Amino acid sequence: MPDSNVTSATDARDVLARMGRDARAAQRVLANASAGVRSAAIAAIADEVEKAKAEILAANAQDVADAEKNDLGAAKIDRLRLDDARIAGIAEAARAIAAQADPLGAEIGRWGVKSGLQIARVRTPIGVIGMIFESRPNVTVDAAALTLRSGNCVILRGGSDAARSNAALHACVQRALTGAGLPEACVQLTPASRAAADALLEGADGAIDLIIPRGGKGLVKAVQEKAKAPVLAHLEGICHLYIHSAANLEMARAVALNAKMRRTGVCGAAETLLIDRAAAETMLPAIARDLTAAGCELRGDATARAIYPDMAPATEEDWRTEYLDSVLAVRVVDGMDAAVDHIAEYGSNHTESIITDDEDAAEHFLRHVDSAIVMHNASTQFADGGEFGMGAEIGISTNRLHARGPVGAEQLTTFKYVVHGSGQTRP
Amino acid sequence: MPDSNVTSATDARDVLARMGRDARAAQRVLANASAGVRSAAIAAIADEVEKAKAEILAANAQDVADAEKNDLGAAKIDRLRLDDARIAGIAEAARAIAAQADPLGAEIGRWGVKSGLQIARVRTPIGVIGMIFESRPNVTVDAAALTLRSGNCVILRGGSDAARSNAALHACVQRALTGAGLPEACVQLTPASRAAADALLEGADGAIDLIIPRGGKGLVKAVQEKAKAPVLAHLEGICHLYIHSAANLEMARAVALNAKMRRTGVCGAAETLLIDRAAAETMLPAIARDLTAAGCELRGDATARAIYPDMAPATEEDWRTEYLDSVLAVRVVDGMDAAVDHIAEYGSNHTESIITDDEDAAEHFLRHVDSAIVMHNASTQFADGGEFGMGAEIGISTNRLHARGPVGAEQLTTFKYVVHGSGQTRP
Repeated sequence: MPDSNVTSATDARDVLARMGRDARAAQRVLANASAGVRSAAIAAIADEVEKAKAEILAANAQDVADAEKNDLGAAKIDRLRLDDARIAGIAEAARAIAAQADPLGAEIGRWGVKSGLQIARVRTPIGVIGMIFESRPNVTVDAAALTLRSGNCVILRGGSDAARSNAALHACVQRALTGAGLPEACVQLTPASRAAADALLEGADGAIDLIIPRGGKGLVKAVQEKAKAPVLAHLEGICHLYIHSAANLEMARAVALNAKMRRTGVCGAAETLLIDRAAAETMLPAIARDLTAAGCELRGDATARAIYPDMAPATEEDWRTEYLDSVLAVRVVDGMDAAVDHIAEYGSNHTESIITDDEDAAEHFLRHVDSAIVMHNASTQFADGGEFGMGAEIGISTNRLHARGPVGAEQLTTFKYVVHGSGQTRP
Repeated sequence: MPDSNVTSATDARDVLARMGRDARAAQRVLANASAGVRSAAIAAIADEVEKAKAEILAANAQDVADAEKNDLGAAKIDRLRLDDARIAGIAEAARAIAAQADPLGAEIGRWGVKSGLQIARVRTPIGVIGMIFESRPNVTVDAAALTLRSGNCVILRGGSDAARSNAALHACVQRALTGAGLPEACVQLTPASRAAADALLEGADGAIDLIIPRGGKGLVKAVQEKAKAPVLAHLEGICHLYIHSAANLEMARAVALNAKMRRTGVCGAAETLLIDRAAAETMLPAIARDLTAAGCELRGDATARAIYPDMAPATEEDWRTEYLDSVLAVRVVDGMDAAVDHIAEYGSNHTESIITDDEDAAEHFLRHVDSAIVMHNASTQFADGGEFGMGAEIGISTNRLHARGPVGAEQLTTFKYVVHGSGQTRP
């Protein structure tokens, strides 16, 4: 039905253009609302979610029933499902963001210049953010809380599988905004249609300053290709753990097991283990045994397999793969330069860690590896806004510009220069 | 000749893919070169430009002769032309950048978290920058110096009108790099063809991290539409000067004349004068007389024309126009809110200034106007990296993300998180 599609795309453009205008108007109000008013609104979201728990769970049960009918798969259904504990978690995250220091108005630099002008850099909101996400309904509340904290308005387009759950949570956000005296258009939810997603990516008639996709690699790539506005993307985390020749064996064992197996589906999970040739004979067997015992499949290069035969052979493709599963690629390298070169060639510039007792080697690695997060003697699974002390995060950016690594409320701000003079004219 | 065009596009893609690979390799060397080596290379560019002055001027004379033959227009030919003073200026700018504090490796934050990890944010280069510019040959050296200072490699695509001048200046940069022991591929110059520009905008086979266009609005818009990498754009500067009812008349006169007429072709030039109704009768005649006497054409709304009849009527279009010429739109407004609303509706979020002796009014304006630069009692013509104490600038960003306002070496960096642990695993 091409005609009906055209109509629906046109309708979606009209709807998004109106949402964009409403968001722009709301943003001018929100940007000038006090930190206290915004904190109160965020805390009220938590209250409203707790009060509406029965309705939210009922809406979610319908989404889950449909998902089961449509054979969506266990992993997606798990991400979709809400229960008492997850509702409590959503409220708790909102309250933590309500309690955070407010980023807006903070002076992040001040200096005088020879003309006598006084120049300050001051944090301000970015503006209107478009967010496209998949099946996790908690994103509705996380995004609302983080964007209110940072003074931005947000237009949310959630996955169709979670449409009823998102609508129920969004209704809580609307009540909280109204109660705090803020415009409802601070946080809007589009229809869960493809046409709405496309119209949002087209920029909602020029209203969108930033697009944030949250979901799998397919979603992120599609958004990057289509979006007219800048995209804060979270792509692959092909994270490396490098066991240096001067590593402490017990630390190497504990960190390797944790970096791979604590949770295999997170972007900070290690995907490749690099180990120095000088340490491989003595350390690899114990590290590999721990991982095998924990249910991890190992895929090694020839040298690694000669030392620990219970490994499948790794192919070139393995070095480039984000498994997000209980699989680890293992490569024996000829020292620091080979490790750094391997990471430069195959890594995704997300998070890499070196295990060593040699401080100079650690400093060399931290300096020469060009990733958003570089670590010494720590598990890559610490790549997380909460663990970094940022409160909640909206994701981990693999962009090189604006925000790299965990993105919390502060990373959702920009700045302006405020200049005080006394009548200066420029010669 | 479609066949020849296809071949040439393919050739350009091959050439740019090779330049991209060379730039990536060079960038790893450059990122780890000391501040001293990079300073020496930048200073050497200045020396080489002075030594090669005769060749540069000869190459430029040929470009200018062709430009005159092709009737390029006086403004473009003026931007293209080099002479002794401009050569001296190019060398001086490079030496100033060589003397600047180095941004790389600077720690811009450090904190501990409850797991015991120590987290630092450290400035690092962005990577490989593609720069597309029009007829000013000095950009070749400015861009080389600023990118070396910030540890980035750059691929330059200059205008075809300036091809010989750019090549002569680029040869100086190459000699300076070689002399300093840095790879020549730190600063590359593409052929001045459309196919080369297109291949650069396509990302040079994935090598480009950031595209910076420098030139007119047409160039910037075309780059924004075509570029696959993020674009640091400099679009319009529709700058406003707001004369508040509590302005000092003499200051208002001096700043208005300077903001409009010091140089009319720069992005920080005022394009619209807003004046409070309460001040218009007493202040507008003197301000308008100064501007008229200096050769400025005024276009006013009905109230302004009733007070000062020697004005053409302003249309809606005038409020949206960046004249870059001796023309000023004048509007009488009903106080602060009307001024802020006018700027929100018609401005380009570049630079706006209020003239007032009322500190509360000034703070209200500085807070509520959402522009990269907001000023109190100063001329908008101070919107400039040099005047902001940043040394040279590569442009003024009208982006909201990453860098807003003047872009110097520091704004051409990103950061990474450096995390020190003692064997932490994540619970």
